[in-house]
Amino acid sequence: MQINLERMQRRLAALTTPALGGTPAGGMTRLALTDTDREARDLFITWLREERLEPRVDDFGNIYGRRAGTDPTLPPVFVGSHLDTVPGGGRFDGIVGVVAALEVASALNEAGTQTRHPLDIVNWTNEEGARFTPAMLASGAVTGVFAREWVYARTDRHGLTFGDELARIGYLGEEAARPSAIAASLELHIEQGPILEAGGESVGIVEGVVGIRWCTVTVCGQSAHAGPTPMAVRHDAMVAAARMIVAARDLARARGDINATVGNLIPEPGVINVIPPTVTFSLDLRGRIDATLEAVVAKDLRSRFDAIAREEGIAYELIVDWSVPPTPFASVIKDRAEALCRERGYTARRLWAGAGHDSQYLARVTQAAMIFTPTIGGLSHCETEDAPWPDIAKGTDIMLALAVELANG
Amino acid sequence: MQINLERMQRRLAALTTPALGGTPAGGMTRLALTDTDREARDLFITWLREERLEPRVDDFGNIYGRRAGTDPTLPPVFVGSHLDTVPGGGRFDGIVGVVAALEVASALNEAGTQTRHPLDIVNWTNEEGARFTPAMLASGAVTGVFAREWVYARTDRHGLTFGDELARIGYLGEEAARPSAIAASLELHIEQGPILEAGGESVGIVEGVVGIRWCTVTVCGQSAHAGPTPMAVRHDAMVAAARMIVAARDLARARGDINATVGNLIPEPGVINVIPPTVTFSLDLRGRIDATLEAVVAKDLRSRFDAIAREEGIAYELIVDWSVPPTPFASVIKDRAEALCRERGYTARRLWAGAGHDSQYLARVTQAAMIFTPTIGGLSHCETEDAPWPDIAKGTDIMLALAVELANG
Repeated sequence: MQINLERMQRRLAALTTPALGGTPAGGMTRLALTDTDREARDLFITWLREERLEPRVDDFGNIYGRRAGTDPTLPPVFVGSHLDTVPGGGRFDGIVGVVAALEVASALNEAGTQTRHPLDIVNWTNEEGARFTPAMLASGAVTGVFAREWVYARTDRHGLTFGDELARIGYLGEEAARPSAIAASLELHIEQGPILEAGGESVGIVEGVVGIRWCTVTVCGQSAHAGPTPMAVRHDAMVAAARMIVAARDLARARGDINATVGNLIPEPGVINVIPPTVTFSLDLRGRIDATLEAVVAKDLRSRFDAIAREEGIAYELIVDWSVPPTPFASVIKDRAEALCRERGYTARRLWAGAGHDSQYLARVTQAAMIFTPTIGGLSHCETEDAPWPDIAKGTDIMLALAVELANG
Repeated sequence: MQINLERMQRRLAALTTPALGGTPAGGMTRLALTDTDREARDLFITWLREERLEPRVDDFGNIYGRRAGTDPTLPPVFVGSHLDTVPGGGRFDGIVGVVAALEVASALNEAGTQTRHPLDIVNWTNEEGARFTPAMLASGAVTGVFAREWVYARTDRHGLTFGDELARIGYLGEEAARPSAIAASLELHIEQGPILEAGGESVGIVEGVVGIRWCTVTVCGQSAHAGPTPMAVRHDAMVAAARMIVAARDLARARGDINATVGNLIPEPGVINVIPPTVTFSLDLRGRIDATLEAVVAKDLRSRFDAIAREEGIAYELIVDWSVPPTPFASVIKDRAEALCRERGYTARRLWAGAGHDSQYLARVTQAAMIFTPTIGGLSHCETEDAPWPDIAKGTDIMLALAVELANG
């Protein structure tokens, strides 16, 4: 039983042509439920049919290709990822996971092997959240995180709804197509970070997905004219916010167990010659241990921010808008993946996923796991995103072995 | 010869009624060349006529009320300020200077004194620049800084032009009304800063207007996803920009002879979970000595920013978009103002104006000077802007004495 790297490369190339959202710079723009998404879905379903994987579409547009098992009473093993991308994204994020899932089925077909459990090769709708927020909307919906009507009512920036767009592209399927039970779930994905590349490892065994706190920090100082206001009497919200941004970064760097990122900052009124009375900035905190995140928000950051507020004579408010605990993946699958890598002589490393993935929601209802492969320069969500194929082949090989074991066990 | 404080208060109250732009919160919104500006101008002209000050309007809408001198061949002494305000501004900025100028003429009329030089009581058009940029547009035009067609073509945010709006409100006058020569120019204004209030002084003798450098700093790092990118490998443009903002503030505070303000900052793409590749921020630098500003931009700031760039592994560009040298006012008038304050027992202090004023352009063509009076809490350009009347009375008294001396000298 063997995967076919050339077939994977052909399929990935076919899924990233200009007609399907490929950009001149070698990247991808294929937002969920657009015409290019429909084209990619149509091609995916063509391949499912060629591989005799019976396609079904559920009421969120998730596509499942069923490869029957010997025992039709058993729940399926899921292998899949997503075909949508961010605008100006890359050719690997999500897409290579769908190609790898298809490859598992193709390899099984070529080997003529039948497993006990059925296998479902899956494409999840709107993983990126780039068109309809939040991310992982459809995997969240089938795992009970989001209600259907709420999902349907999500709007894009033009006011178009998820529900209408799903129907428009012809991918509004049946509720009955949703999974009722899942034996296990596997996903291959590029790491989107620099760790495997730096360590020279081919395969990442994902410990789990980190917990997240999304915070809004509002700093309130005293507005004044930049000209006649001496430096010594200022209560400058911009300077205070700048000090907080540096403090958050320094804290994260010193601790080593969290990431802290400020991606957005808005000063009011945002005029060159006005000391801004109000500056609002976002703060994205991630870590492996929920108690750590709690303590960082409640104690470490607050004590630093409090000191800055006292020194600058400003007030601030830190609000946690969104909170997700860490999601560890199934130990039994992770241990088995590690053993398989050792047997095959593949260099591997355990690491945490810093970004969200559909597998995170699947872990709520089944034993789930992810395999990472290296990302060149750690860069993703950009048109230069790239990933070494030899490592993708190794990761897919491990996923094939895991899928067979899980589907037979 | 004596000023009448009650008359000044009555006139200021009449110029700040709701029909003339007074806001419910006690502030003012009277943008240049709007209907409320016309109402205020009409009232000003009514008073000019009542005081037998012959009004004329030039081709930029500047209004001059002429009080004849004994020698009609001599150029006039100017006393004036502006009636326009920023949106949500205060009742004193500019307006009190026009009222004080009128008071000089009224006091002279009551005393029956005739000066050798004529006196012009002036309202300058569009000082604030809040509707048509740049500020001080019409005083700049009559002193040769801006060309007429360029001024007429300036547009507001709705695309309306200065020229059309000037004609629409009926204040497009004659080029012949412009001053051909000016003997001297005086302006009373609120300080818009906290220095006089902090020192307990009633009168500010303005040394001059500080020089300005308006800079744009663009910081370029490496975009990456907030989740999978370890703190240690980041090249975060937001963190680098934050450190530069703090460095600029710390430099200005340590030197004591410049102001540094960051009023605006724009991250790209400005998304919570993306380490921004690009952050652009404004930098407003002001100081009394041009060589100091040059050195700060070319050396002090650059060496600090260079060090931050090295440490964070980012690139940056600092561009000076606008550069104005300091404008010192006429020493002979400043010295005389100081002596007059001493004679009268008024507490006074010399100080620099941090913000621009029409007098800055008048200093290009004549001996110009400004008198500041205290601003409560140092706050201006806001609806709570307030100023103590006893100090305004003292400042106007000094201006009256200066006007008489200059018009006789």
